[in-house]
Amino acid sequence: MDNFTYHNPVKIVFGRGSIGELPGLLPAAAKVLVTYGGGSIQRNGVYDQVAEALGGREWVEFGGIEANPRYATCMKATEMAAAEGAEFLLAVGGGSVLDATKFVAVALRYPEGRDPWEIMLTRDAVASAAPLGCVMTLPATGSEMNGNAVITRDDVPEKLFFSSAKVYPQFSILDPSVTFSLPPRQTANGVIDTFVHVTEQYLTRPNNAPLQDRQAEAILATLVEEGPKALERPDDYDVRANLMWSATNALNRQLSCGTVGDWSSHRIGHELTALYGVDHGQSLAVVHPAVLKYLKDKKRDKLAQYARRIWRLDEADDDALADAAIERTESFFRSLGVATRLGDYGIGPEAAALVARRLAGRTMKVCEQVDLAAEDVEAILALAR
Amino acid sequence: MDNFTYHNPVKIVFGRGSIGELPGLLPAAAKVLVTYGGGSIQRNGVYDQVAEALGGREWVEFGGIEANPRYATCMKATEMAAAEGAEFLLAVGGGSVLDATKFVAVALRYPEGRDPWEIMLTRDAVASAAPLGCVMTLPATGSEMNGNAVITRDDVPEKLFFSSAKVYPQFSILDPSVTFSLPPRQTANGVIDTFVHVTEQYLTRPNNAPLQDRQAEAILATLVEEGPKALERPDDYDVRANLMWSATNALNRQLSCGTVGDWSSHRIGHELTALYGVDHGQSLAVVHPAVLKYLKDKKRDKLAQYARRIWRLDEADDDALADAAIERTESFFRSLGVATRLGDYGIGPEAAALVARRLAGRTMKVCEQVDLAAEDVEAILALAR
Repeated sequence: MDNFTYHNPVKIVFGRGSIGELPGLLPAAAKVLVTYGGGSIQRNGVYDQVAEALGGREWVEFGGIEANPRYATCMKATEMAAAEGAEFLLAVGGGSVLDATKFVAVALRYPEGRDPWEIMLTRDAVASAAPLGCVMTLPATGSEMNGNAVITRDDVPEKLFFSSAKVYPQFSILDPSVTFSLPPRQTANGVIDTFVHVTEQYLTRPNNAPLQDRQAEAILATLVEEGPKALERPDDYDVRANLMWSATNALNRQLSCGTVGDWSSHRIGHELTALYGVDHGQSLAVVHPAVLKYLKDKKRDKLAQYARRIWRLDEADDDALADAAIERTESFFRSLGVATRLGDYGIGPEAAALVARRLAGRTMKVCEQVDLAAEDVEAILALAR
Repeated sequence: MDNFTYHNPVKIVFGRGSIGELPGLLPAAAKVLVTYGGGSIQRNGVYDQVAEALGGREWVEFGGIEANPRYATCMKATEMAAAEGAEFLLAVGGGSVLDATKFVAVALRYPEGRDPWEIMLTRDAVASAAPLGCVMTLPATGSEMNGNAVITRDDVPEKLFFSSAKVYPQFSILDPSVTFSLPPRQTANGVIDTFVHVTEQYLTRPNNAPLQDRQAEAILATLVEEGPKALERPDDYDVRANLMWSATNALNRQLSCGTVGDWSSHRIGHELTALYGVDHGQSLAVVHPAVLKYLKDKKRDKLAQYARRIWRLDEADDDALADAAIERTESFFRSLGVATRLGDYGIGPEAAALVARRLAGRTMKVCEQVDLAAEDVEAILALAR
């Protein structure tokens, strides 16, 4: 096991009716900027619950944050927050709204005359951020209990991330019942995003960390069990609660304690979203099986363990186990109604070289054991045709 | 799943050489009171590492905190901390040292003229506590990542606990290599204490929380695998690291998210320690199998799941599975060299009625489904003869 530091001070308030606890969670007198997305919170009653909980307090709102939130939108929200003198940011929505709000929190405190987009490129530590909290309405990104955010810039186009302890939400409210109304596509995407958050931390080199392995397997087994149920019975509270808590646990840094992550599927997937607009979950459903196939030799030990423990396979040798487990993974994604090949999304074979070229220009390692070169990325995407 | 709030701001610094990170963790100018136990930290080099890390800083020390730390000792340490003007408490040792230090932290800020022992009896919320941190040297209690403390008063005699977010350590340093020198008895006790922390939260009524179930099973399976190895190869770093991280995860409130705990084995075990001086781990090895036997009908569903998933049993029906799993649990404790019957510790059958009478005077519920009456406690201990 590697050395590590773990520190996650986010307060989670989980359960039916938990939006009603907002008044006790917000700083007493702070003016609040409420951020949200395309209006689903107005249709499902969450907006009204939040407005009621804020009753009597001074607050303003910024709506219209899109999926794969854009830099330009974040900068508009930052301007509004500054103009209104908002002292606390409350994100109400899914990971996109929360990620955008984290970026706004940084931008609000960024040195005058400089562009906060810099943090996506330089990886410099964030010096300061405005305080924020969230009401999470879509279990998927884990953003509610971490300091990560992914922002898209469509003038470039780029989809990049930053990570900082300064943007941990002070609190995250998770009421599973607000997810009853999610469309099947978003439910399925969320299950896949959560699943791949776990496997990017688990299907790596062996690390002598059996507890962390099993904590990862705990989430995977739960997703395999509960994911299909959520599509069949969208208003089953316990099923929704189990998916929601799984998503939070998948990316709150617990699984990475003393272990090493991969993240190549996310990195490559982000490029597909930036270039072709596929949903984040869809991009992972396409890329992840291909990454596992391509890196099978390096990941064989863990793939075999995954085959035995999650898919209950008993093929004779590790290689056959690995193959079968990758096949089961792809089938699982398809069983949720999410297509797993580039062609299913109308993306032609030319995407492989294009994405490879873009990633070759990045400085970050995209696999836990090796730097993937452009030809590796191209070969991976060729496996996803 | 039940509603819950989870908030655990303890910073964990884990790994080889992590004591060297102390200077960056302590508040800049605060005078430190270092608390420790019977001197093992002087023999294994931890004292010297801490002293070196504190170099140049103003600090004082209070040694001699005993296993099952006593109220009288805590009050002496409180006097010293007050007299010396200590502003930060640094516990260096196992759960006993840390629990005592948590009590000192409360006592230091307790209203003048009142006795801090009150918090053990009234269950009132702790209003304030001095800041503290720890260097944990014995994986067992989980005290390094929670707000619990158990203190013994030998004039009464009583062994009682309190729990407060005010006494979360600001940081906990865990270096598995300092546990190489633990005697086998303490290693085994630590494995059993960790195991029962998990089962008290897991072997309850079914709660529709499959992720939390599997997170519990992750720890149990790891203990079954790694516990015996630690006795065979006491200086295997990864084995010690896995046990240490398991102990922290067993009682950092994660497993109790949305679920209900039992804790009757701990409550009854504390009485045996208070009355007869058996180690805490030993008391659990005696009481827990008896509790499971006595409450088998109420816990059958979870016992059967535990039998299948942890012990890989495939008996025909749930009742046979439950019986076999309880037997395997007791055998596991014995395989670690810890005796599991009252008679093994020279405790006669009269203990049953005595403990039952003492617990009958308590106000707290000792089982997640029913209040155990005096005759239940007596019957449980009769099963532990």
